[in-house]
Amino acid sequence: MKRLAILGSTGSIGTHTLEVIALLGEQFRVTALAAGGNVERLETQVRQFAPRIVSVGSQAAAVDLRRRLGSGRTEVVWGERGLLEVAVDGGAELVVSAIAGGAGLLPTVAALRAGKQMALANKESLVMAGEIVTAVARERNLQILPVDSEHSAIFQCLPGGDVSEVRRIILTASGGPFRTRPREAFSSITPEEALRHPNWRMGKKVTIDSATLMNKGLEVIEAHWLFGLPVGQVDAIIHPQSIVHSLVEFVDGSVLAQLGVPDMRVPIQYALTYPGRRRTAVPRLALDGLAGLTFEPVDRERFPCFDLAYEAAEAGGSSPAVLNAANEVAVERFLERRIGFDEIPTVIRKALDAHPSREVRTVEEILDIDREVREWLEKR
Amino acid sequence: MKRLAILGSTGSIGTHTLEVIALLGEQFRVTALAAGGNVERLETQVRQFAPRIVSVGSQAAAVDLRRRLGSGRTEVVWGERGLLEVAVDGGAELVVSAIAGGAGLLPTVAALRAGKQMALANKESLVMAGEIVTAVARERNLQILPVDSEHSAIFQCLPGGDVSEVRRIILTASGGPFRTRPREAFSSITPEEALRHPNWRMGKKVTIDSATLMNKGLEVIEAHWLFGLPVGQVDAIIHPQSIVHSLVEFVDGSVLAQLGVPDMRVPIQYALTYPGRRRTAVPRLALDGLAGLTFEPVDRERFPCFDLAYEAAEAGGSSPAVLNAANEVAVERFLERRIGFDEIPTVIRKALDAHPSREVRTVEEILDIDREVREWLEKR
Repeated sequence: MKRLAILGSTGSIGTHTLEVIALLGEQFRVTALAAGGNVERLETQVRQFAPRIVSVGSQAAAVDLRRRLGSGRTEVVWGERGLLEVAVDGGAELVVSAIAGGAGLLPTVAALRAGKQMALANKESLVMAGEIVTAVARERNLQILPVDSEHSAIFQCLPGGDVSEVRRIILTASGGPFRTRPREAFSSITPEEALRHPNWRMGKKVTIDSATLMNKGLEVIEAHWLFGLPVGQVDAIIHPQSIVHSLVEFVDGSVLAQLGVPDMRVPIQYALTYPGRRRTAVPRLALDGLAGLTFEPVDRERFPCFDLAYEAAEAGGSSPAVLNAANEVAVERFLERRIGFDEIPTVIRKALDAHPSREVRTVEEILDIDREVREWLEKR
Repeated sequence: MKRLAILGSTGSIGTHTLEVIALLGEQFRVTALAAGGNVERLETQVRQFAPRIVSVGSQAAAVDLRRRLGSGRTEVVWGERGLLEVAVDGGAELVVSAIAGGAGLLPTVAALRAGKQMALANKESLVMAGEIVTAVARERNLQILPVDSEHSAIFQCLPGGDVSEVRRIILTASGGPFRTRPREAFSSITPEEALRHPNWRMGKKVTIDSATLMNKGLEVIEAHWLFGLPVGQVDAIIHPQSIVHSLVEFVDGSVLAQLGVPDMRVPIQYALTYPGRRRTAVPRLALDGLAGLTFEPVDRERFPCFDLAYEAAEAGGSSPAVLNAANEVAVERFLERRIGFDEIPTVIRKALDAHPSREVRTVEEILDIDREVREWLEKR
């Protein structure tokens, strides 16, 4: 039996993970959950999976949840301390880190330090603190199992994770809803339009990131740390059908690719059952009908966020954390209709220029930078 | 240093193999070659690679080759005995079995019995005698490394060759030159047209087999033995671009595929360098330009050879050997303009009907059946 903790259980990855676990049956046991403010959904999850401990975002939410659960056996904790308790003392062997954004960093590092196996959906942990996170995992001899469909694809194409014979990794990107929209029309894009992803159903933040291609930029940085390859050996390509989830080109010219229906339950389950595979309820890829897979280069002119990510990764140090914080702020402002879609990269550009790369050695230093950038942006 | 023997060195696979070895450099040494009647090309190969021993098809060819080589150190032998000597006593660790047709069976089995690692291009060995060949390899703990691009693709998608989590293998087929030609026009197809393969440059026999889809049928049987999967778990799909070389669908819905330019040197080199990979001179797959990969089902009505292969495989015993012999005869007759393209499956159908499946236990029994079918067809 494998005991699991899920950080971010009421989000898109979290709910999909619980769906997968429900179908996998008795070999998996959910011992701990952490969520933010969606107490209603969390209540349902607690009733279904009976974890030993759950954490919510605030004291008010904790009071609400305790009242709803009545005399159940599940311990309810809250806030940052509660979240860390779930990550470290939740009685799990494997932690699914699926909190969106920079908030996922601390519990991810804490879980790794506590020797937990890690199924990582929170890409910000690696974007902001890739060097620290991978160093902790290496020291504890823990494998970081990717949950992102692209990184899971790469991982499946690399037996044993060996990259010594890899020429490059090629992440596929759907291109988002504005793949064919002219750049002049970018300023009039509404949040509603940007939230309509053609292939994947995901959370709001990552959906906007997909529309700007920042998501692919963040994934390039994530892949760089996850697989230990220089950023220059990580490429991306537009593949609007989202059937090929990513590719690996080897030094001998051979290319391996992982394909499947665009359904997060496949990579989530692979991270849970790795190194084995289990049957799923996910629809099979109908190969006979796969007419017209296409690939095209990323249009770096129209999607400047993509290059900003490379720039931050090459600069290293604090720069990827600056990139990430500025992007989170910019996306929030766009969703609140305070800035236009085309201004997202402008905000990030300014933040990167105002915060040149400096060395970072601890998670605390990275979180300081994150705060610093947010405060700096608030004044603008 | 790896010492190699190449059976069928002047054919398409053989010459490509020597090209690969020349580029790989000093870690590979050719110790033995076997060819048929192309003495001129063999002379060039002997001068370039200086093997210890070479075999040719006939005494006359041996006399010719000895005269051409003059006082060289290479021993020249001939005929079936010569071929077996090269396979068994050629001083090689790895034998590349690349003789076309049923003639490759005996030396392949002999090399395996002598404990040689096997890079197998001669699919007939597995089609005719899959049970025997794989049993010999298992007993001697030898891995049979596939050279066919499709089987190499599958092999690369199966880390460690483990098929326990495979739902099905999907071999891709270009569909050959008559993929879109109406069936009524099949009777007027000339050998010249059939020899014009859209994507691959190969020997005559396999090019005609590609045009009838018998090649894919034979490959289904080959895959069945090579990977130890029931024939019902081996599928084929038409993929006219020949970029995806084959796919593996796992039980969890995940599909792995191997892609690359259609160039035999990639799978050949992988068989030679396995489990490692080495840089090649093969052009890289230009992903950006990969617009429009398509897949469509095999048209079993227009290409009855494909189903005949499944039928023979399901019948088992002697039937695949009957299928193979009848196909070789039919292809030869078509190339000699004695029968029409559409009559190839008719010949095979008759041979299968006249030779119901019976048990076979030895290579000699299989070769008896092969002779029997050829003699029976000669009278017709």
